[in-house]
Amino acid sequence: MNTIGQLFRLTTYGESHGVAIGGIIDGCPAGLSLDLEFIQNELDRRKPGQSSITTPRKESDTVQFYSGIFEGKTTGAPIGFVIPNSDAKSQDYNHLKNTFRPSHSDYSYTNKYGFRDYRGGGRSSARETANWVVAGAIAKQLLSEIQINAFVSSVGTVSIGKSYEQLDFSKIESNIIRCPDKLTADKMIALVEQVRDDGDTIGGVISCVVQNVPKGLGEPIFDKLHANLGKALLSINAVKGVEFGSGFCSTEMRGSQHNDIFNPDGSTQTNLSGGIQGGISNGMDIYFRVAFKPVSTLMKEQKSVDDKGQEIVLDGKGRHDPCVLPRAVPVVEAMTALVLADFHLLNKNSKL
Amino acid sequence: MNTIGQLFRLTTYGESHGVAIGGIIDGCPAGLSLDLEFIQNELDRRKPGQSSITTPRKESDTVQFYSGIFEGKTTGAPIGFVIPNSDAKSQDYNHLKNTFRPSHSDYSYTNKYGFRDYRGGGRSSARETANWVVAGAIAKQLLSEIQINAFVSSVGTVSIGKSYEQLDFSKIESNIIRCPDKLTADKMIALVEQVRDDGDTIGGVISCVVQNVPKGLGEPIFDKLHANLGKALLSINAVKGVEFGSGFCSTEMRGSQHNDIFNPDGSTQTNLSGGIQGGISNGMDIYFRVAFKPVSTLMKEQKSVDDKGQEIVLDGKGRHDPCVLPRAVPVVEAMTALVLADFHLLNKNSKL
Amino acid sequence: MNTIGQLFRLTTYGESHGVAIGGIIDGCPAGLSLDLEFIQNELDRRKPGQSSITTPRKESDTVQFYSGIFEGKTTGAPIGFVIPNSDAKSQDYNHLKNTFRPSHSDYSYTNKYGFRDYRGGGRSSARETANWVVAGAIAKQLLSEIQINAFVSSVGTVSIGKSYEQLDFSKIESNIIRCPDKLTADKMIALVEQVRDDGDTIGGVISCVVQNVPKGLGEPIFDKLHANLGKALLSINAVKGVEFGSGFCSTEMRGSQHNDIFNPDGSTQTNLSGGIQGGISNGMDIYFRVAFKPVSTLMKEQKSVDDKGQEIVLDGKGRHDPCVLPRAVPVVEAMTALVLADFHLLNKNSKL
Amino acid sequence: MNTIGQLFRLTTYGESHGVAIGGIIDGCPAGLSLDLEFIQNELDRRKPGQSSITTPRKESDTVQFYSGIFEGKTTGAPIGFVIPNSDAKSQDYNHLKNTFRPSHSDYSYTNKYGFRDYRGGGRSSARETANWVVAGAIAKQLLSEIQINAFVSSVGTVSIGKSYEQLDFSKIESNIIRCPDKLTADKMIALVEQVRDDGDTIGGVISCVVQNVPKGLGEPIFDKLHANLGKALLSINAVKGVEFGSGFCSTEMRGSQHNDIFNPDGSTQTNLSGGIQGGISNGMDIYFRVAFKPVSTLMKEQKSVDDKGQEIVLDGKGRHDPCVLPRAVPVVEAMTALVLADFHLLNKNSKL
Repeated sequence: MNTIGQLFRLTTYGESHGVAIGGIIDGCPAGLSLDLEFIQNELDRRKPGQSSITTPRKESDTVQFYSGIFEGKTTGAPIGFVIPNSDAKSQDYNHLKNTFRPSHSDYSYTNKYGFRDYRGGGRSSARETANWVVAGAIAKQLLSEIQINAFVSSVGTVSIGKSYEQLDFSKIESNIIRCPDKLTADKMIALVEQVRDDGDTIGGVISCVVQNVPKGLGEPIFDKLHANLGKALLSINAVKGVEFGSGFCSTEMRGSQHNDIFNPDGSTQTNLSGGIQGGISNGMDIYFRVAFKPVSTLMKEQKSVDDKGQEIVLDGKGRHDPCVLPRAVPVVEAMTALVLADFHLLNKNSKL
Repeated sequence: MNTIGQLFRLTTYGESHGVAIGGIIDGCPAGLSLDLEFIQNELDRRKPGQSSITTPRKESDTVQFYSGIFEGKTTGAPIGFVIPNSDAKSQDYNHLKNTFRPSHSDYSYTNKYGFRDYRGGGRSSARETANWVVAGAIAKQLLSEIQINAFVSSVGTVSIGKSYEQLDFSKIESNIIRCPDKLTADKMIALVEQVRDDGDTIGGVISCVVQNVPKGLGEPIFDKLHANLGKALLSINAVKGVEFGSGFCSTEMRGSQHNDIFNPDGSTQTNLSGGIQGGISNGMDIYFRVAFKPVSTLMKEQKSVDDKGQEIVLDGKGRHDPCVLPRAVPVVEAMTALVLADFHLLNKNSKL
Repeated sequence: MNTIGQLFRLTTYGESHGVAIGGIIDGCPAGLSLDLEFIQNELDRRKPGQSSITTPRKESDTVQFYSGIFEGKTTGAPIGFVIPNSDAKSQDYNHLKNTFRPSHSDYSYTNKYGFRDYRGGGRSSARETANWVVAGAIAKQLLSEIQINAFVSSVGTVSIGKSYEQLDFSKIESNIIRCPDKLTADKMIALVEQVRDDGDTIGGVISCVVQNVPKGLGEPIFDKLHANLGKALLSINAVKGVEFGSGFCSTEMRGSQHNDIFNPDGSTQTNLSGGIQGGISNGMDIYFRVAFKPVSTLMKEQKSVDDKGQEIVLDGKGRHDPCVLPRAVPVVEAMTALVLADFHLLNKNSKL
Repeated sequence: MNTIGQLFRLTTYGESHGVAIGGIIDGCPAGLSLDLEFIQNELDRRKPGQSSITTPRKESDTVQFYSGIFEGKTTGAPIGFVIPNSDAKSQDYNHLKNTFRPSHSDYSYTNKYGFRDYRGGGRSSARETANWVVAGAIAKQLLSEIQINAFVSSVGTVSIGKSYEQLDFSKIESNIIRCPDKLTADKMIALVEQVRDDGDTIGGVISCVVQNVPKGLGEPIFDKLHANLGKALLSINAVKGVEFGSGFCSTEMRGSQHNDIFNPDGSTQTNLSGGIQGGISNGMDIYFRVAFKPVSTLMKEQKSVDDKGQEIVLDGKGRHDPCVLPRAVPVVEAMTALVLADFHLLNKNSKL
């Protein structure tokens, strides 16, 4: 349940306000030279407090590796890692001990487990995604020939309005919202600042493009490439939907419009399939869109109930993001890399 | 890879034009009285040739059970079942032996496996979903207190335009398109007939509502309830996207609009969360939308290439659905039931 | 639970007296040319009624393949197969409906599941092992360069008394007990005939030698090669123990006697390790011994109790083997092949 | 590969001479009050340097819990733990960098992974078993009504010579060899001291008895209770064989001698089955024997080869146990507890 992957596997643990979070990466082949600085850079893209539009919680998010690496290379043994929690202010959460925050997991966790670790959301906190970024950064190094680029394509109703072919992915990291189109990025940032100043939050869409994918990744029936990607992406906190290639737009189309006609070299003239046919990559670009709802924690008062069913008013305490999108960009990439790494290993046995 | 589920598990086999398809349902608790007629009825909802707007292929789709049932009840042993293929016309596919049909899996399968069973799409055929309906019909009986209702909510641009609370689910089976709103259903049917007469195909959306779900189903991190539902739904042939609760609409909302405020009894005043919070059911209705692209096989000529890279023209042969939506309704329900049955069993161990 | 293997996976179903038994082999790479006659020959080595010292139940044990094979080769799709039950005489078991046979699974199954399919032992029957032989025969073909030879090395106190290097494996099939040493075989057969005529049963040991195993098979911690072999062998009905290489004898030895000293080419001067070090094959012969208890079903009266706790006397009805060893030889080989095939596929990703 | 269990799951990492070892326990139900002192006591039973007949390596083996426990109880979230390595003297191993120690995993690991972490055996070190003891100590608390007692029943040819019913398990911890029979224990200790003084090592047998086991644990086909126990036990370093109940002795018996006749209450007059019938517990005591070979590392010179195939002489450096049996007793118990805990959870769904 806390494991993802069949051959390239990540198992994780950790609560937002515990001693540390961490995980075990199992199944990475031996002999992979690891760039540990790259891993830390990926964590830095996700870490809190990175800009004026993210939560002010300060975590250095420094990953420590305990095993599985020797003389700079993976040994085939599991890679254990730990990310200490340093700036946990658990007392911020004492007032939540007996209350249920709207649209959080407080109520469902309490019903499932009988009680809950209420400090900072416990296991349900998005802090967990730092573990995923560590593993994803190793998966990316295993898949060095594949390019994975995620970016913020809309915030609220501010949308990028361009197809990905029109964008310069090298600009994604050039602004704090991680949108490669400067004009749109500026509008998005202004919107998030306004929302933040209102003590409110806002949703948006992250798009992701995967290029140079080998043909044949994915398994036909219950492990289709997009099905496993979909599951991995829907695991990210606040995600409410995902669509691949033509996605929901395809539902209004006819087959004669939608079919991707082949070129003689096996590539296709259009790519409404989004690089996946029958659940298996066909060598064209994979692209998909991920819907993020607005964060549930507001910096203003909300009505709620406590565990006795009494109506209460929640203050807007704690430290939270007005918009998770910019910090979720590396998380989307990490989950994509984990799924692709797993299929990359599985595909070694597709044929004799 | 051909298995879905952790405790309630379905493993399947079979090609469209082989001897038979079938599967094994493992993990169903002993002592469940099975209504075999109900299972066959579910298959009949999916079977080809059921109406003027489905493929004319005639398959009785009669399921035979070989094990795991004794004196009308499950024994705890695996349930082996077989659905013979009776109306396979493999010769219809000889012309496809060396060609790749646009937006089918022909090209990706051939690249993955080195060759392929080209008869009727082989393993990639949606005929496989009959296996899922059998297992889903058993899962539904295990979950007798839960109601799962899927229906066609749009075909092309013809959309139902009502929230599910305004619909009468008992009307779903009253028309051949499986839309509970008669006026919309008539328009959808007319559209599909027109598309069929054009030799073309069309996409659409299936909505699904799950009611009376116990609180606590789903696992927090990598097996969130909606993540596993999403994976199961994305496994269905032609599905390009899925959204839960407020879905993509949530991306344009603010948290103060989107949060579901609690009632004193733990229910919520709104249900934009779609019955799932933190990946775990909260007792409210679960609802989601599934996007189906138009079927790739057209009954008219298309350009394509063969395995030598030569350009060819494909005739529109074979027997296919102009719109898979009506037959996919029981498949959506089956996949939903399989996921819920698995979480139902897993949840027995959530707490002491 | 009814699945074995991580990448090369067998899932099975079927009761002794149901319609059929069968299974699904998933994960076999595409492009393997299958010799179907070899598979049937393996089944014939296991089938009942093959000689005067096996059960007189007559089953042709003809396997039918339903999927996954096209033009003589595996396609990468799951291989579904069925073995019909033809000579089930369920009425032989009516007297057992409410009784518990000593040292059978009747009592433990009834306690686990609340009731049981009492016909012929239901799911607990060794008939299930026919499924394993089918899958094992495919695994053997995948591992064509590896030789797996099992044989009966003792029956009761009649033991072969030679190391395997002194034996000619080509003689294993030359007698009905499957012992390659003719003198010992004759004594074993005489013993089984005497036991049979007494209405009794007898245990014994099967030894197995695996030669030409690639170095590196097995995974270090919880999937050691001998641990997974051990689990597979202990799954065989009536097996009570297993030992690898020096086995229980090693417990009386000193390290200076037991260590296998290397030759310059990496082979070892002795092989007390039995071809496995640290859970991983080292290229030397793998050998192990499997202990079979005497069959529980006797052809003479026994005291027992019924489900009301009343003492009863069981007649010796039904058709059973006085000694399962000769028929278990292909089963031991099949389980060995299944484990090795799985590790063979897993090992494709041990290093870059 | 580094995970054991289906529902109660342990995943581990760590090398003997890395920063730390550790693991994640996933699937433990919420609400279990944990006695952390008990866990540490179990570790102390396994830790090095505990007596004159164990390795002088000094490790405090203090476990630190990072997650999954709140207010003294399990929360349902994964339990992450770490055991730091404090007394690793890696320089002791520099001379082994290019050499292969006889009957160690050096050669097989190098062949599998292309290179190896040669410090202290790396991942293959029995230090890993400390992780198992932590998880086993939690499993024991989950199974509080079950008693698991392992003890040393033979060292070399010194054997206890009594059935377990004649022993007082409360005496197991009363001597440093962990044999409940004082006279035998004294002889064993004297033998180990002599072996140690010779710079040699010696093997032996650990017996284990599990009492008060609920009926119905185990799954019929590929997850039989003794098959999974066997796999778990064969995972322990230096184990070469395992036998359940009558074990190898049963091979010389007739069915009429071996069958366990029922008492009216469902218990049996004898218990040659060892508490397991058809792979499922029947409520009688489970007992089994585990064969340990002598440790490979000697404190005297041995011939070997290096990675160039040159013959060398190995010094007897490092710090090692002359006999692992006393420290392996808690490991055998831990693995037994892990398997039983998993089946305990699985069995919640055996029937409606």
